[in-house]
Amino acid sequence: MKSNYIVCYDITNEKRLRQVFKTLKGIGTHIQYSVFFCKLTWQELTGLKEKLEGIIDGNEDDIRIYPLPSNSKCVVLGQGDRIPEGVEMFL
Amino acid sequence: MKSNYIVCYDITNEKRLRQVFKTLKGIGTHIQYSVFFCKLTWQELTGLKEKLEGIIDGNEDDIRIYPLPSNSKCVVLGQGDRIPEGVEMFL
Repeated sequence: MKSNYIVCYDITNEKRLRQVFKTLKGIGTHIQYSVFFCKLTWQELTGLKEKLEGIIDGNEDDIRIYPLPSNSKCVVLGQGDRIPEGVEMFL
Repeated sequence: MKSNYIVCYDITNEKRLRQVFKTLKGIGTHIQYSVFFCKLTWQELTGLKEKLEGIIDGNEDDIRIYPLPSNSKCVVLGQGDRIPEGVEMFL
């Protein structure tokens, strides 16, 4: 079963940022500057965590992965042109 | 009843960014560069949306407010020194 997650990242180095971006791009939807939306199984989540841990500098960078409720609703203010599939928005 | 939300913002103008930051600082916890965690009632959420809408440029800026599950769990990778109260983390 897949669950919804958002991944927010602060990466302090350009090379690592590119690697993190590329990793997330392969598995999720880029919705904001430093935010991806992903639909993942538990195994995929574990794999993603391992990949990201292999890239980041644990003393400098900061990544958070938030599980969203299954009926994910998102308030969008402003331009918000990327709404991931399965996420309902309300204004 | 208060619920947990994370607010992610991309603001393209420094003045508006400062205003958005100040508004969120008054109501939540700054956990990442462009991410705040807030515990809000429905009324507070409505008030926050109105305030933010009054600040941002709807064609340029992008704010998303995600409701988190009540038993919010967050995967933290890297330095993650700010874990908001009420959010359990797992590594």
